[in-house]
Amino acid sequence: MSNTPSTAPTSRTKIRRLAELANHDKSVLYGIIDESYVCHIAFNDGKSTHCIPTASWRIDNHLYIHGSNGSRLIKRLSSGIQASIAITHVDGLVLARSAFSNTMNYRSAVIYGVFEEVDGNEQKMVALDAFMEKIATGRKNEARPGNKKELAATSVLRISLNEFATKISNADPDDKEEDLNLPVWAGVLPLTVKREAPRPFQNGSIPTPAYVEKWANV
Amino acid sequence: MSNTPSTAPTSRTKIRRLAELANHDKSVLYGIIDESYVCHIAFNDGKSTHCIPTASWRIDNHLYIHGSNGSRLIKRLSSGIQASIAITHVDGLVLARSAFSNTMNYRSAVIYGVFEEVDGNEQKMVALDAFMEKIATGRKNEARPGNKKELAATSVLRISLNEFATKISNADPDDKEEDLNLPVWAGVLPLTVKREAPRPFQNGSIPTPAYVEKWANV
Repeated sequence: MSNTPSTAPTSRTKIRRLAELANHDKSVLYGIIDESYVCHIAFNDGKSTHCIPTASWRIDNHLYIHGSNGSRLIKRLSSGIQASIAITHVDGLVLARSAFSNTMNYRSAVIYGVFEEVDGNEQKMVALDAFMEKIATGRKNEARPGNKKELAATSVLRISLNEFATKISNADPDDKEEDLNLPVWAGVLPLTVKREAPRPFQNGSIPTPAYVEKWANV
Repeated sequence: MSNTPSTAPTSRTKIRRLAELANHDKSVLYGIIDESYVCHIAFNDGKSTHCIPTASWRIDNHLYIHGSNGSRLIKRLSSGIQASIAITHVDGLVLARSAFSNTMNYRSAVIYGVFEEVDGNEQKMVALDAFMEKIATGRKNEARPGNKKELAATSVLRISLNEFATKISNADPDDKEEDLNLPVWAGVLPLTVKREAPRPFQNGSIPTPAYVEKWANV
Protein backbone atom coordinates (compact mmCIF):
# COMPACT_ATOMS: atom_id res chain seq x y z
CA MET A 1 0.00 0.00 0.00
CA SER A 2 2.92 2.36 0.60
CA ASN A 3 6.57 2.40 1.43
CA THR A 4 6.12 3.70 4.97
CA PRO A 5 6.79 1.15 7.67
CA SER A 6 4.15 -1.12 9.09
CA THR A 7 4.08 -1.68 12.85
CA ALA A 8 3.46 -5.02 14.51
CA PRO A 9 0.28 -4.95 16.62
CA THR A 10 0.56 -5.18 20.42
CA SER A 11 -1.99 -6.92 22.63
CA ARG A 12 -3.85 -3.60 22.72
CA THR A 13 -3.81 -2.89 19.01
CA LYS A 14 -4.45 -6.38 17.65
CA ILE A 15 -7.92 -6.12 16.14
CA ARG A 16 -10.10 -9.16 16.80
CA ARG A 17 -13.46 -7.95 15.48
CA LEU A 18 -13.55 -7.76 11.65
CA ALA A 19 -9.81 -8.34 11.70
CA GLU A 20 -9.71 -8.22 7.91
CA LEU A 21 -10.35 -4.45 8.11
CA ALA A 22 -7.36 -3.84 10.38
CA ASN A 23 -4.26 -2.13 9.16
CA HIS A 24 -0.99 -1.24 10.85
CA ASP A 25 0.51 0.71 7.95
CA LYS A 26 1.74 4.14 8.99
CA SER A 27 0.70 5.83 5.76
CA VAL A 28 -2.91 4.85 6.50
CA LEU A 29 -2.63 6.21 10.05
CA TYR A 30 -1.06 9.43 8.81
CA GLY A 31 -3.82 9.91 6.25
CA ILE A 32 -6.54 9.53 8.89
CA ILE A 33 -4.82 12.04 11.19
CA ASP A 34 -4.04 14.56 8.46
CA GLU A 35 -7.66 14.69 7.36
CA SER A 36 -8.87 15.42 10.90
CA TYR A 37 -8.86 18.56 13.04
CA VAL A 38 -9.86 16.96 16.32
CA CYS A 39 -9.04 13.79 18.24
CA HIS A 40 -10.61 12.20 21.33
CA ILE A 41 -8.26 11.44 24.20
CA ALA A 42 -9.02 8.85 26.90
CA PHE A 43 -7.10 8.88 30.16
CA ASN A 44 -7.65 7.93 33.77
CA ASP A 45 -6.73 10.46 36.43
CA GLY A 46 -6.85 8.00 39.32
CA LYS A 47 -10.48 8.78 40.07
CA SER A 48 -12.28 8.65 36.74
CA THR A 49 -11.76 7.76 33.12
CA HIS A 50 -12.31 10.73 30.81
CA CYS A 51 -12.88 11.13 27.07
CA ILE A 52 -12.00 14.64 25.94
CA PRO A 53 -11.99 16.13 22.44
CA THR A 54 -9.19 18.47 21.46
CA ALA A 55 -7.55 19.90 18.35
CA SER A 56 -4.63 17.84 17.06
CA TRP A 57 -2.18 17.67 14.19
CA ARG A 58 0.79 15.62 13.04
CA ILE A 59 4.46 16.32 12.44
CA ASP A 60 6.38 13.32 11.15
CA ASN A 61 5.75 10.44 13.57
CA HIS A 62 4.12 12.42 16.39
CA LEU A 63 0.61 13.65 17.10
CA TYR A 64 0.51 17.10 18.73
CA ILE A 65 -2.01 18.86 20.94
CA HIS A 66 -1.89 22.19 22.74
CA GLY A 67 -3.67 24.04 25.49
CA SER A 68 -3.40 26.44 28.37
CA ASN A 69 -0.82 25.43 30.96
CA GLY A 70 -3.59 25.41 33.54
CA SER A 71 -6.04 23.12 31.71
CA ARG A 72 -6.84 19.84 33.42
CA LEU A 73 -6.30 17.89 30.20
CA ILE A 74 -2.80 19.33 29.71
CA LYS A 75 -1.84 18.88 33.37
CA ARG A 76 -2.99 15.27 33.50
CA LEU A 77 -1.51 14.25 30.16
CA SER A 78 1.87 15.84 30.88
CA SER A 79 2.14 13.87 34.13
CA GLY A 80 3.21 10.73 32.28
CA ILE A 81 -0.06 8.80 32.41
CA GLN A 82 -1.11 6.39 29.71
CA ALA A 83 -3.43 7.76 27.04
CA SER A 84 -5.49 6.34 24.23
CA ILE A 85 -6.49 8.52 21.31
CA ALA A 86 -9.13 7.88 18.67
CA ILE A 87 -9.86 9.66 15.40
CA THR A 88 -12.80 8.57 13.26
CA HIS A 89 -14.17 9.61 9.87
CA VAL A 90 -17.69 8.38 9.07
CA ASP A 91 -17.97 7.91 5.30
CA GLY A 92 -21.42 6.43 4.90
CA LEU A 93 -24.25 4.21 6.02
CA VAL A 94 -24.42 0.82 4.33
CA LEU A 95 -27.97 -0.47 3.99
CA ALA A 96 -28.27 -4.20 3.43
CA ARG A 97 -31.41 -6.22 2.75
CA SER A 98 -31.34 -7.62 6.26
CA ALA A 99 -31.29 -5.33 9.28
CA PHE A 100 -28.42 -7.23 10.90
CA SER A 101 -26.22 -6.82 7.83
CA ASN A 102 -26.37 -3.03 7.93
CA THR A 103 -23.04 -1.41 8.64
CA MET A 104 -21.10 1.82 8.20
CA ASN A 105 -18.21 2.86 6.09
CA TYR A 106 -15.55 4.56 8.17
CA ARG A 107 -11.84 5.11 8.73
CA SER A 108 -10.69 5.05 12.32
CA ALA A 109 -7.42 5.12 14.21
CA VAL A 110 -6.70 4.25 17.83
CA ILE A 111 -3.32 5.20 19.28
CA TYR A 112 -1.77 4.26 22.65
CA GLY A 113 1.10 5.89 24.47
CA VAL A 114 2.27 8.60 26.83
CA PHE A 115 2.41 12.29 25.95
CA GLU A 116 5.60 14.28 26.43
CA GLU A 117 5.90 18.02 26.75
CA VAL A 118 7.51 20.03 23.96
CA ASP A 119 10.06 22.21 25.75
CA GLY A 120 11.22 25.68 24.85
CA ASN A 121 9.51 28.55 23.06
CA GLU A 122 11.28 27.87 19.80
CA GLN A 123 10.21 24.22 19.66
CA LYS A 124 6.66 25.11 20.68
CA MET A 125 6.54 27.70 17.91
CA VAL A 126 7.71 25.18 15.32
CA ALA A 127 4.92 22.82 16.40
CA LEU A 128 2.21 25.51 16.44
CA ASP A 129 3.36 26.81 13.04
CA ALA A 130 2.86 23.32 11.64
CA PHE A 131 -0.74 23.38 12.91
CA MET A 132 -1.28 26.76 11.24
CA GLU A 133 0.22 25.43 8.00
CA LYS A 134 -2.19 22.51 8.08
CA ILE A 135 -5.17 24.83 8.47
CA ALA A 136 -4.06 27.60 6.13
CA THR A 137 -0.87 27.18 4.14
CA GLY A 138 1.21 30.34 4.14
CA ARG A 139 -0.70 32.07 6.91
CA LYS A 140 2.02 31.64 9.51
CA ASN A 141 3.86 34.45 7.70
CA GLU A 142 0.85 36.80 7.92
CA ALA A 143 -0.83 36.54 11.30
CA ARG A 144 0.86 38.06 14.31
CA PRO A 145 2.94 35.28 15.85
CA GLY A 146 2.67 34.52 19.54
CA ASN A 147 4.74 36.69 21.84
CA LYS A 148 6.82 35.37 24.73
CA LYS A 149 3.99 35.75 27.22
CA GLU A 150 1.46 33.93 25.00
CA LEU A 151 3.94 31.16 24.26
CA ALA A 152 4.83 30.77 27.93
CA ALA A 153 1.15 30.36 28.85
CA THR A 154 0.65 27.60 26.28
CA SER A 155 1.70 23.97 26.54
CA VAL A 156 2.35 21.77 23.55
CA LEU A 157 2.34 18.00 24.05
CA ARG A 158 3.15 15.24 21.62
CA ILE A 159 2.81 11.48 21.49
CA SER A 160 4.74 9.14 19.24
CA LEU A 161 2.78 7.18 16.66
CA ASN A 162 4.19 3.74 17.30
CA GLU A 163 1.43 1.76 19.01
CA PHE A 164 -1.72 2.05 16.93
CA ALA A 165 -4.31 0.31 14.84
CA THR A 166 -6.41 1.63 12.02
CA LYS A 167 -9.60 0.10 10.71
CA ILE A 168 -11.12 0.94 7.37
CA SER A 169 -14.49 -0.15 6.08
CA ASN A 170 -15.29 0.86 2.51
CA ALA A 171 -17.78 -1.67 1.28
CA ASP A 172 -21.02 -2.30 -0.55
CA PRO A 173 -23.88 -4.03 1.27
CA ASP A 174 -22.94 -7.63 2.03
CA ASP A 175 -26.05 -9.71 2.52
CA LYS A 176 -26.25 -13.38 3.24
CA GLU A 177 -26.92 -15.55 0.19
CA GLU A 178 -30.52 -16.23 1.24
CA ASP A 179 -31.31 -12.50 1.59
CA LEU A 180 -30.00 -11.39 -1.81
CA ASN A 181 -33.34 -11.67 -3.55
CA LEU A 182 -35.44 -9.88 -0.95
CA PRO A 183 -37.35 -6.95 -2.50
CA VAL A 184 -35.48 -4.39 -0.39
CA TRP A 185 -33.42 -1.44 -1.56
CA ALA A 186 -29.71 -1.92 -0.83
CA GLY A 187 -26.93 0.61 -1.17
CA VAL A 188 -24.73 3.18 0.47
CA LEU A 189 -25.80 6.57 1.83
CA PRO A 190 -22.50 8.50 1.70
CA LEU A 191 -21.44 11.16 4.16
CA THR A 192 -18.56 13.55 3.67
CA VAL A 193 -17.05 16.58 5.37
CA LYS A 194 -17.32 19.59 3.07
CA ARG A 195 -15.60 22.94 3.19
CA GLU A 196 -18.16 25.69 2.84
CA ALA A 197 -17.74 29.26 1.60
CA PRO A 198 -15.39 31.27 3.85
CA ARG A 199 -17.04 33.98 5.99
CA PRO A 200 -14.77 37.05 6.05
CA PHE A 201 -14.95 39.16 9.17
CA GLN A 202 -14.48 42.94 8.99
CA ASN A 203 -11.59 42.75 6.59
CA GLY A 204 -11.98 46.13 4.92
CA SER A 205 -9.49 46.38 2.07
CA ILE A 206 -7.46 43.30 2.94
CA PRO A 207 -7.14 41.06 -0.12
CA THR A 208 -8.34 37.47 0.21
CA PRO A 209 -5.34 35.16 0.69
CA ALA A 210 -4.84 32.15 -1.60
CA TYR A 211 -5.68 29.62 1.13
CA VAL A 212 -9.04 31.32 1.68
CA GLU A 213 -9.76 31.42 -2.07
CA LYS A 214 -8.98 27.73 -2.27
CA TRP A 215 -10.87 26.67 0.86
CA ALA A 216 -14.21 25.76 -0.64
CA ASN A 217 -12.82 24.63 -3.99
CA VAL A 218 -10.66 21.68 -2.95
CA MET B 1 -33.13 27.79 25.50
CA SER B 2 -35.72 25.02 25.77
CA ASN B 3 -38.13 23.48 28.18
CA THR B 4 -36.15 20.28 28.71
CA PRO B 5 -34.50 20.01 32.09
CA SER B 6 -31.07 21.29 32.82
CA THR B 7 -28.76 19.15 34.94
CA ALA B 8 -26.45 20.50 37.63
CA PRO B 9 -22.79 19.83 36.80
CA THR B 10 -20.80 17.35 38.90
CA SER B 11 -17.09 17.71 39.69
CA ARG B 12 -16.45 15.84 36.45
CA THR B 13 -18.76 17.86 34.24
CA LYS B 14 -18.12 21.35 35.57
CA ILE B 15 -16.32 23.08 32.73
CA ARG B 16 -13.45 25.29 33.88
CA ARG B 17 -11.88 26.22 30.53
CA LEU B 18 -13.99 28.72 28.53
CA ALA B 19 -16.76 28.11 31.06
CA GLU B 20 -19.00 30.56 29.22
CA LEU B 21 -19.35 28.00 26.43
CA ALA B 22 -20.57 25.28 28.77
CA ASN B 23 -24.13 24.10 28.80
CA HIS B 24 -25.99 21.51 30.83
CA ASP B 25 -29.30 21.72 28.99
CA LYS B 26 -30.55 18.34 27.85
CA SER B 27 -32.00 19.62 24.58
CA VAL B 28 -28.51 20.74 23.57
CA LEU B 29 -27.08 17.33 24.49
CA TYR B 30 -29.84 15.53 22.59
CA GLY B 31 -29.21 17.66 19.50
CA ILE B 32 -25.50 16.84 19.48
CA ILE B 33 -26.20 13.11 19.84
CA ASP B 34 -29.00 13.02 17.28
CA GLU B 35 -26.82 14.61 14.63
CA SER B 36 -24.06 12.03 15.14
CA TYR B 37 -23.69 8.41 14.05
CA VAL B 38 -20.65 7.54 16.11
CA CYS B 39 -19.38 8.23 19.63
CA HIS B 40 -16.01 7.64 21.28
CA ILE B 41 -16.04 5.62 24.49
CA ALA B 42 -13.27 5.76 27.10
CA PHE B 43 -12.92 3.04 29.71
CA ASN B 44 -10.23 1.40 31.76
CA ASP B 45 -10.11 -2.40 31.82
CA GLY B 46 -7.76 -2.63 34.80
CA LYS B 47 -4.69 -2.75 32.59
CA SER B 48 -5.11 0.08 30.09
CA THR B 49 -7.32 3.00 29.26
CA HIS B 50 -8.95 2.68 25.84
CA CYS B 51 -10.71 5.08 23.47
CA ILE B 52 -12.95 3.18 21.06
CA PRO B 53 -15.31 4.54 18.39
CA THR B 54 -18.66 2.86 17.91
CA ALA B 55 -22.07 3.54 16.38
CA SER B 56 -24.56 5.09 18.80
CA TRP B 57 -28.04 6.52 18.93
CA ARG B 58 -30.50 7.93 21.43
CA ILE B 59 -33.91 6.93 22.77
CA ASP B 60 -35.35 9.37 25.28
CA ASN B 61 -32.76 9.87 28.01
CA HIS B 62 -30.40 7.01 27.08
CA LEU B 63 -27.57 6.61 24.61
CA TYR B 64 -27.45 3.15 23.00
CA ILE B 65 -24.69 1.08 21.44
CA HIS B 66 -24.62 -2.46 20.12
CA GLY B 67 -22.17 -5.15 19.15
CA SER B 68 -21.37 -8.82 19.07
CA ASN B 69 -21.68 -10.54 22.43
CA GLY B 70 -18.06 -11.55 22.08
CA SER B 71 -16.57 -8.13 21.40
CA ARG B 72 -14.14 -6.82 23.98
CA LEU B 73 -15.85 -3.44 24.06
CA ILE B 74 -19.24 -4.98 24.85
CA LYS B 75 -17.83 -7.40 27.42
CA ARG B 76 -15.92 -4.69 29.26
CA LEU B 77 -18.71 -2.11 29.21
CA SER B 78 -21.35 -4.56 30.36
CA SER B 79 -19.23 -5.49 33.40
CA GLY B 80 -20.30 -2.33 35.23
CA ILE B 81 -17.16 -0.25 34.77
CA GLN B 82 -17.25 3.52 34.55
CA ALA B 83 -17.28 4.97 31.03
CA SER B 84 -16.88 8.38 29.51
CA ILE B 85 -18.30 9.13 26.09
CA ALA B 86 -17.55 12.03 23.78
CA ILE B 87 -19.27 13.21 20.62
CA THR B 88 -17.89 16.16 18.67
CA HIS B 89 -18.99 18.09 15.60
CA VAL B 90 -16.35 20.38 14.07
CA ASP B 91 -18.12 23.33 12.44
CA GLY B 92 -15.26 25.51 11.30
CA LEU B 93 -11.84 27.01 11.76
CA VAL B 94 -11.78 30.53 13.14
CA LEU B 95 -8.84 32.56 11.85
CA ALA B 96 -7.96 35.58 13.93
CA ARG B 97 -5.37 38.25 13.22
CA SER B 98 -3.09 36.85 15.86
CA ALA B 99 -2.02 33.21 15.79
CA PHE B 100 -2.87 32.69 19.46
CA SER B 101 -6.43 33.92 18.96
CA ASN B 102 -7.23 31.26 16.36
CA THR B 103 -9.84 28.79 17.48
CA MET B 104 -12.46 26.37 16.18
CA ASN B 105 -16.19 26.34 16.09
CA TYR B 106 -17.57 23.07 17.44
CA ARG B 107 -20.30 21.37 19.42
CA SER B 108 -19.17 18.67 21.81
CA ALA B 109 -20.70 16.51 24.51
CA VAL B 110 -19.00 14.49 27.21
CA ILE B 111 -21.08 11.96 29.16
CA TYR B 112 -20.17 9.94 32.27
CA GLY B 113 -21.81 6.84 33.64
CA VAL B 114 -22.08 3.08 33.59
CA PHE B 115 -23.64 1.08 30.75
CA GLU B 116 -26.39 -1.44 31.42
CA GLU B 117 -27.41 -4.32 29.22
CA VAL B 118 -30.75 -4.23 27.44
CA ASP B 119 -32.31 -7.61 28.25
CA GLY B 120 -34.63 -9.70 26.14
CA ASN B 121 -35.03 -10.02 22.38
CA GLU B 122 -38.08 -7.78 22.29
CA GLN B 123 -36.38 -4.91 24.08
CA LYS B 124 -33.25 -5.30 21.97
CA MET B 125 -35.37 -5.18 18.83
CA VAL B 126 -37.09 -1.99 19.95
CA ALA B 127 -33.71 -0.37 20.49
CA LEU B 128 -32.26 -1.56 17.18
CA ASP B 129 -35.39 -0.45 15.33
CA ALA B 130 -34.89 3.04 16.73
CA PHE B 131 -31.37 3.06 15.29
CA MET B 132 -32.75 1.99 11.90
CA GLU B 133 -35.40 4.72 12.09
CA LYS B 134 -32.71 7.30 12.74
CA ILE B 135 -30.76 6.20 9.66
CA ALA B 136 -33.66 5.59 7.32
CA THR B 137 -37.17 6.41 8.45
CA GLY B 138 -39.63 3.68 7.51
CA ARG B 139 -37.02 1.12 6.58
CA LYS B 140 -37.58 -1.05 9.62
CA ASN B 141 -40.76 -2.23 7.90
CA GLU B 142 -38.90 -3.23 4.73
CA ALA B 143 -35.60 -4.89 5.57
CA ARG B 144 -35.62 -8.42 6.93
CA PRO B 145 -35.67 -8.09 10.72
CA GLY B 146 -33.19 -9.99 12.83
CA ASN B 147 -34.09 -13.58 13.61
CA LYS B 148 -33.74 -15.16 17.04
CA LYS B 149 -30.23 -16.38 16.38
CA GLU B 150 -29.03 -12.98 15.14
CA LEU B 151 -30.65 -11.19 18.05
CA ALA B 152 -29.20 -13.63 20.56
CA ALA B 153 -25.69 -13.02 19.21
CA THR B 154 -26.03 -9.24 19.57
CA SER B 155 -25.77 -7.19 22.73
CA VAL B 156 -27.40 -3.82 23.16
CA LEU B 157 -26.12 -1.55 25.94
CA ARG B 158 -27.41 1.78 27.11
CA ILE B 159 -26.26 4.55 29.40
CA SER B 160 -28.42 7.20 30.98
CA LEU B 161 -27.86 10.81 30.00
CA ASN B 162 -27.71 12.38 33.42
CA GLU B 163 -24.07 13.30 34.03
CA PHE B 164 -22.85 15.31 31.07
CA ALA B 165 -21.55 18.60 29.81
CA THR B 166 -21.81 20.15 26.39
CA LYS B 167 -19.66 22.90 24.99
CA ILE B 168 -20.55 24.99 21.98
CA SER B 169 -18.35 27.48 20.21
CA ASN B 170 -19.97 29.40 17.38
CA ALA B 171 -18.07 32.61 17.10
CA ASP B 172 -16.38 35.11 14.84
CA PRO B 173 -12.67 35.83 15.26
CA ASP B 174 -12.06 37.54 18.57
CA ASP B 175 -8.80 39.48 18.47
CA LYS B 176 -7.29 41.57 21.18
CA GLU B 177 -7.89 45.28 20.81
CA GLU B 178 -4.31 45.97 19.74
CA ASP B 179 -4.45 43.38 16.94
CA LEU B 180 -7.67 44.56 15.30
CA ASN B 181 -5.95 46.80 12.78
CA LEU B 182 -3.31 44.32 11.65
CA PRO B 183 -3.47 43.84 7.86
CA VAL B 184 -4.39 40.17 8.17
CA TRP B 185 -7.44 38.38 6.80
CA ALA B 186 -9.82 37.27 9.56
CA GLY B 187 -12.83 35.06 9.24
CA VAL B 188 -14.30 31.60 9.53
CA LEU B 189 -13.57 28.61 7.29
CA PRO B 190 -16.74 26.53 7.78
CA LEU B 191 -16.89 22.74 7.76
CA THR B 192 -20.05 20.69 7.53
CA VAL B 193 -21.07 17.07 7.12
CA LYS B 194 -22.92 16.62 3.83
CA ARG B 195 -25.06 13.81 2.59
CA GLU B 196 -23.95 12.79 -0.88
CA ALA B 197 -25.88 11.05 -3.65
CA PRO B 198 -26.98 7.53 -2.62
CA ARG B 199 -25.16 4.65 -4.36
CA PRO B 200 -27.71 1.91 -5.14
CA PHE B 201 -26.36 -1.64 -5.19
CA GLN B 202 -27.78 -4.26 -7.56
CA ASN B 203 -31.37 -3.29 -6.93
CA GLY B 204 -32.86 -4.37 -10.25
CA SER B 205 -36.47 -3.24 -10.38
CA ILE B 206 -36.81 -2.22 -6.74
CA PRO B 207 -38.20 1.33 -6.50
CA THR B 208 -36.16 3.89 -4.58
CA PRO B 209 -37.66 4.39 -1.10
CA ALA B 210 -38.55 7.88 0.11
CA TYR B 211 -35.72 7.98 2.68
CA VAL B 212 -33.20 7.31 -0.10
CA GLU B 213 -34.75 9.95 -2.37
CA LYS B 214 -34.55 12.45 0.46
CA TRP B 215 -31.03 11.54 1.59
CA ALA B 216 -29.00 14.07 -0.39
CA ASN B 217 -31.69 16.74 -0.44
CA VAL B 218 -32.00 17.51 3.24
